[in-house]
This record gives sequence, C-alpha cells and structure tokens, in this order.
Amino acid sequence: MADENIVYIGRKPTMNYVLAVVMQFNSGSDDVIIKARGRSISTAVDVAEIVRNKFVQEAKIKDIQISTEQLTGDEGRTSNVSSIEIFMSK
Amino acid sequence: MADENIVYIGRKPTMNYVLAVVMQFNSGSDDVIIKARGRSISTAVDVAEIVRNKFVQEAKIKDIQISTEQLTGDEGRTSNVSSIEIFMSK
Repeated sequence: MADENIVYIGRKPTMNYVLAVVMQFNSGSDDVIIKARGRSISTAVDVAEIVRNKFVQEAKIKDIQISTEQLTGDEGRTSNVSSIEIFMSK
Repeated sequence: MADENIVYIGRKPTMNYVLAVVMQFNSGSDDVIIKARGRSISTAVDVAEIVRNKFVQEAKIKDIQISTEQLTGDEGRTSNVSSIEIFMSK
C-alpha cells in the first residue's frame, strides 16, 4: 500500500480529515489508513465514524491497531505517546 | 462476561483507570473491556498501552471496536459521539 493512502490526523478541523479520507476513496483507493497520536486519537475515531456513516457507506473498519511511540523532546528527554492506526477499506 | 469486567474511562487521572484494569486482571479476570466516549478515547488507548507495557505484560489487545452513539442533550437535541471498546485478555 502506498504512502498516499495514509491520512495523518493533526489539529485542523475534523472535517478537513474526513474530506481527505473521502477523496482517497473517491480517487480509486480501496484502502485508507488513518493515523493519529496522543489527543488526536479521539479525532481519528470521529473521522472514521463520520466517513463510514455519512460519506462512504460501503467503507468498513478492517482493523484497528494501537501502540506506544517514544518521542524525544527538545531537551533530550523521551516521553511515551500512544498512537492509533485505523485501517478502512471499501 | 459480567459487567464488572468493564472499565469506563472518564475525567479522572489516567493512572486511576490503569489501576482499575490491573486490579481486574489481578483479581482473576482473564478479560477486561475498556470503554470510552468522545475526548476520553485517547485516555482509553493510553490506559490499554500502559497496562500491557508496564503492569500486565502477558495482557494482549484482543479486539478494538469503534462506533457512534447518539446522545440527547438537556434541550432535547441529539448529538453524535464516537465511542471505543478495547478488549484486553491475558
């Protein structure tokens, strides 16, 4: 699966990411991966739910993986942050 | 599976919920379900990751389900909120 099928969730409005996922599906992709870390995880779930309930009804949640990533801050300290990958397909 | 195996994530500190899940496993449960809605979804993922990385190493994420729940506000308006269920087992 190519990189362009991944939608990274950040701090923009939720609908921006919904649109990004919908456009992936409409441009011929059968699979889209939604990735997020930390507080954005809730938004990632919102995006997946809005896409499949409102825009791409044939899209399904194929798998959801969670993991922990280590981030190194400016001062060299490391902190753990949770992440999520939501695999959608139609 | 009985109701007492469910840990609902709210607005308390993350470690409160980590402790609740660890106590479930230590009291003999082989399965614990972590449930959360809205902004608490991120905390639910944190709880699952901290439990399996730090406290109950043999615990695994068996399944993750996401869905949309309809909430009715004080004024009778309904709003949609995303929810997550993380099924852990050891």
